[in-house]
Amino acid sequence: MEAGMTAALIALDWGTSSLRAYLMDGKGRVLERRSNGHGIQNLPVPGAAGFEQVFSALCGEWLNRSPKLPVVAGGMVGSAQGWAEAPYVRCPADTATLAGSAVTVESAAGVRLLIAPGVIFDPADDTPDVMRGEEIQIAGALADNPEFSARACVALPGTHSKWVQVSDGRIVRFATYMTGELFAVLTRHSILGRLMPKGTDSGAETREAAFTAGVEAARNGSTGDLAHQIFAARTLGLTRRLPADALKDYLSGLLIGNELVSGLALVRDTLDSDTPLVLIGEDALCDRYVSALAVLGVRPAAKLDNTAPRGLFQFAVSAGLVTPNSSEGATIP
Amino acid sequence: MEAGMTAALIALDWGTSSLRAYLMDGKGRVLERRSNGHGIQNLPVPGAAGFEQVFSALCGEWLNRSPKLPVVAGGMVGSAQGWAEAPYVRCPADTATLAGSAVTVESAAGVRLLIAPGVIFDPADDTPDVMRGEEIQIAGALADNPEFSARACVALPGTHSKWVQVSDGRIVRFATYMTGELFAVLTRHSILGRLMPKGTDSGAETREAAFTAGVEAARNGSTGDLAHQIFAARTLGLTRRLPADALKDYLSGLLIGNELVSGLALVRDTLDSDTPLVLIGEDALCDRYVSALAVLGVRPAAKLDNTAPRGLFQFAVSAGLVTPNSSEGATIP
Repeated sequence: MEAGMTAALIALDWGTSSLRAYLMDGKGRVLERRSNGHGIQNLPVPGAAGFEQVFSALCGEWLNRSPKLPVVAGGMVGSAQGWAEAPYVRCPADTATLAGSAVTVESAAGVRLLIAPGVIFDPADDTPDVMRGEEIQIAGALADNPEFSARACVALPGTHSKWVQVSDGRIVRFATYMTGELFAVLTRHSILGRLMPKGTDSGAETREAAFTAGVEAARNGSTGDLAHQIFAARTLGLTRRLPADALKDYLSGLLIGNELVSGLALVRDTLDSDTPLVLIGEDALCDRYVSALAVLGVRPAAKLDNTAPRGLFQFAVSAGLVTPNSSEGATIP
Repeated sequence: MEAGMTAALIALDWGTSSLRAYLMDGKGRVLERRSNGHGIQNLPVPGAAGFEQVFSALCGEWLNRSPKLPVVAGGMVGSAQGWAEAPYVRCPADTATLAGSAVTVESAAGVRLLIAPGVIFDPADDTPDVMRGEEIQIAGALADNPEFSARACVALPGTHSKWVQVSDGRIVRFATYMTGELFAVLTRHSILGRLMPKGTDSGAETREAAFTAGVEAARNGSTGDLAHQIFAARTLGLTRRLPADALKDYLSGLLIGNELVSGLALVRDTLDSDTPLVLIGEDALCDRYVSALAVLGVRPAAKLDNTAPRGLFQFAVSAGLVTPNSSEGATIP
């Protein structure tokens, strides 16, 4: 940390497969960042001792420098398999709702962490849905882009993609799509993977065309077609209509396309047609979604990456652990 | 084989995971049956020698008794990974079409086998689809139930379910649904399997209700919803709306329900509403389909099991290897 910047918060984005730690100033800016692969399913030792050890190794130096720093955490660290369970809060939810149901855990060294809960959508007339971590990313996106707070549809592509309706700064409804996991299990464990080579010989253009063809097949589909549509990722290879190394792209287009058709219908049912669509997620994956959306004639209003630090900062502010824009926070030189 | 019955044919239903052999008389009746687990992906030694060995072990005694018996085979034995490849024939197809493109292989012992091709549906304006083995089952179903020959929709539930339009005794169009394989990879390799116990404590009624709820969710779905719907096989467990051991039944209902919604729409698009729906397959699985169809208000006209021997007989007749109802075929006493 350079002179002139005052640390005000340690924020932990602690998911299933990784821990990302941020040292932040009083304006919500990241001063330093550290990460490792010790997600909650990959701890060096099981249980609380494992969480202690990973936290201390990654953030010990920061705490040595500034022992009084507040610490907040979000993501799977608050699940039943996490450091301490922070039960889901119900929609509608914002950072104030999260702060109101947060759970405190104290490390062996006496450091207190405030862990954010996840969010549950649990209507009597529909199947329930849950998120953990995405609510933090959404809070960060809205803090950095207040124009989306009044009304937005936020899509977070991933292993378990989320489609989220935001109204008056709060998460009011959402749906999970197992798109990324479906792609993984189908390519790794189903017959579809057998025709798919590891490498790629075809050019980017061929593979992009295959992706687009998958999205178009999804667009032209009807209810329940998916289990049939995916078989084409085999037959298009058998008949040599697609080169083997483009079958994965076709399947990707098919799965993302189906998610988009369903997710957009969900939005159109309950939001105005001019409600902005915001994508949050890893840049390369969001780009695939932008391409697929273009096939469907939809253009997202924004594409945001790693909004978790800012979301954790907002959570800390709502919990009263940080006073934003405080005089102590000097500007980055 | 008892006295009074004359063998006229050896028929092999040789699939991916098993070989079923039938000794048949001149009227297409099964005199003896044998089977083992040596499907084409489980041969004792690879290649032609493996096929030889398995065939000889299972059928050698029959051939010793009647060395001149014709031998026919259908299923994956005719695929690129089979004993000899019998390339797909195009729709429309019946046993005459199959016989016209069958491939002969001669064993080391000098026995000739006639291998049936699979069928391909390959229109310019749609994705291609393929079957191998189901065309034989359909031929058997139509031979035993000629009332369905003029016009029928035949559904064959399984790892890769087939929905087939039959017109004038021929397969004119079909679609594959990877329903069974999706169920297998999701329960074994996805996060959904984690909440599913191996055993069952809940009563049959609870599990049937979960299955029905899955079918209803499929019925109420829209295009592209599947990747979202399946996540409920997790959240219904997390929220204890369903007992853990009923989540598999819910997922099964969801996947079968989606197949039915899509398959029935395919039928309704191109066949009359009074076209009979015929199920062919393993009895317990067909029963699940009958239950799911009942939720959708549809009643199949027939439920048939193991029509492959009769289909192979019809194939042999079309190939001129057997003369049906010949005087040599004595009745079973």
